[in-house]
Amino acid sequence: MVSKFVSFAHGDETRYGLIAAGGVVDLSARHRAQWPTLQQVVAQGAFGALAEAGAALAPDLPLEGLRYALPTLAPEKIICVGVNFPDRNAEYKDGKEAPPNPSLFPRFLRSFTAHEQPLIRPPESEQLDYEGEIAIVIGKPGRRIAERDALGHIAALTLANEGTIRDWVRHAKFNVTQGKNFDRSGSLGPWLVPFADEAQLADIALTTRVNGEVRQSDRTSRMIFSFRKIINYVSTFTTLVPGDILITGTPTGAGARFDPPIWLRPGDVVEVEAEGIGLLRNTIADEA
Amino acid sequence: MVSKFVSFAHGDETRYGLIAAGGVVDLSARHRAQWPTLQQVVAQGAFGALAEAGAALAPDLPLEGLRYALPTLAPEKIICVGVNFPDRNAEYKDGKEAPPNPSLFPRFLRSFTAHEQPLIRPPESEQLDYEGEIAIVIGKPGRRIAERDALGHIAALTLANEGTIRDWVRHAKFNVTQGKNFDRSGSLGPWLVPFADEAQLADIALTTRVNGEVRQSDRTSRMIFSFRKIINYVSTFTTLVPGDILITGTPTGAGARFDPPIWLRPGDVVEVEAEGIGLLRNTIADEA
Repeated sequence: MVSKFVSFAHGDETRYGLIAAGGVVDLSARHRAQWPTLQQVVAQGAFGALAEAGAALAPDLPLEGLRYALPTLAPEKIICVGVNFPDRNAEYKDGKEAPPNPSLFPRFLRSFTAHEQPLIRPPESEQLDYEGEIAIVIGKPGRRIAERDALGHIAALTLANEGTIRDWVRHAKFNVTQGKNFDRSGSLGPWLVPFADEAQLADIALTTRVNGEVRQSDRTSRMIFSFRKIINYVSTFTTLVPGDILITGTPTGAGARFDPPIWLRPGDVVEVEAEGIGLLRNTIADEA
Repeated sequence: MVSKFVSFAHGDETRYGLIAAGGVVDLSARHRAQWPTLQQVVAQGAFGALAEAGAALAPDLPLEGLRYALPTLAPEKIICVGVNFPDRNAEYKDGKEAPPNPSLFPRFLRSFTAHEQPLIRPPESEQLDYEGEIAIVIGKPGRRIAERDALGHIAALTLANEGTIRDWVRHAKFNVTQGKNFDRSGSLGPWLVPFADEAQLADIALTTRVNGEVRQSDRTSRMIFSFRKIINYVSTFTTLVPGDILITGTPTGAGARFDPPIWLRPGDVVEVEAEGIGLLRNTIADEA
């Protein structure tokens, strides 16, 4: 059974723990001196030791009422892959062939909110859209990592709703930066699943639902750029370091694809689910 | 006279100080308990107090042999503005009008090196190009900052050589991420000049020289998107926080503009200079 490492708010602090039957084992209470946050757990490869330490313990807190926090709090960088599933390139209707290399854009951590926290629709636009994706968290540093070695650099897996303000993606001559970085317009979580085996990634189902209706559904075996290729390509130009997050692309079926487009509205519930990783759920809210 | 706050390597640590006649006043030695790095100096608005404290002191170290470090070590985000001087839009030769909003792309701190450190040409490309720019460092947090209030959010000014691997800018369908983020392909520095007055920015000369030959030369009064507008626009989608760096665009005349293009080669010396801020100099080296 996979372990699930969760960050959560406890009073004014952010703690981490292990999901157990009916609740959460508070690992911070026991191990914060050695590993203050999941960031250090990732960097020091401590998932195995902590899973073992936590396995025998009874939960300290119930899952009900748990306030989830972002799984890591200080990634040096978050890089997203655009256009990485079949039919996604065709959605752009620009007559261009799929390119030989992945489109990449950074997101800042503050553009994400946690599991069960509201995704924020800003007053500047009604075009808030979802993109369900698998996110990998780097555990071992490297530059120019060969594809054959790439999976050994992954510490953990999680999910992303790579929420996008569509009209702001095309606001300027180049680059999607602004449409991808509205504060709390996306989400990350619900937890980190330690990575141990290629079977956790190779051919798993990735599904996005809005108010229970399936909007995106595909399998990772159909990705245009594989996890190995993404790690290899990104590390060609930038050194990957522990805690870095790579968000690996969304299947066809975002709201922008519909005619007319269907944007997210306050009260809508978006769920991103992947086999063996979990289910990331957020409700939409207008910015207060 | 403007104060110049410099970060520098001292043994294994990074210290900061004040440039004085013939040398550097080591402020870390005196003030690190209160302000461990320039990042805290920026966040706590301490330039005035430190300039006063350091003004009467004799230099502790000579300028000769000083190993400059990046002026700040942990910005939450670095956002660059593309296409922000007259003729730059025309350089793209795509027949498109200048857009109504600035093109923006993030760079990671590790894509920069310090003053007098080599800019690195990677083995993947011979198309290393320069872009001289003015960088502003945010001191006061804010979201949706009005243009009239924008300059009050600036803590300091510095310079950037926003070094670019040209062929990698167009490697993929969208976004310039990879061509703008090769490790140590750009530079930041040489120091931070505290911001006090709009006259420090409003109409200053910005010049880039390669081996002494002027390649880029323009004035900030000709920027398409003003400093006020950039701060206003960026803060519409993301909360600006102390230490954030905005790199505000380069004049026409990068090496890619020449026919045939003139790329930087090992041994070339690039200098970016702006009135009242300083001179940022780097030699090009092939990656070791």
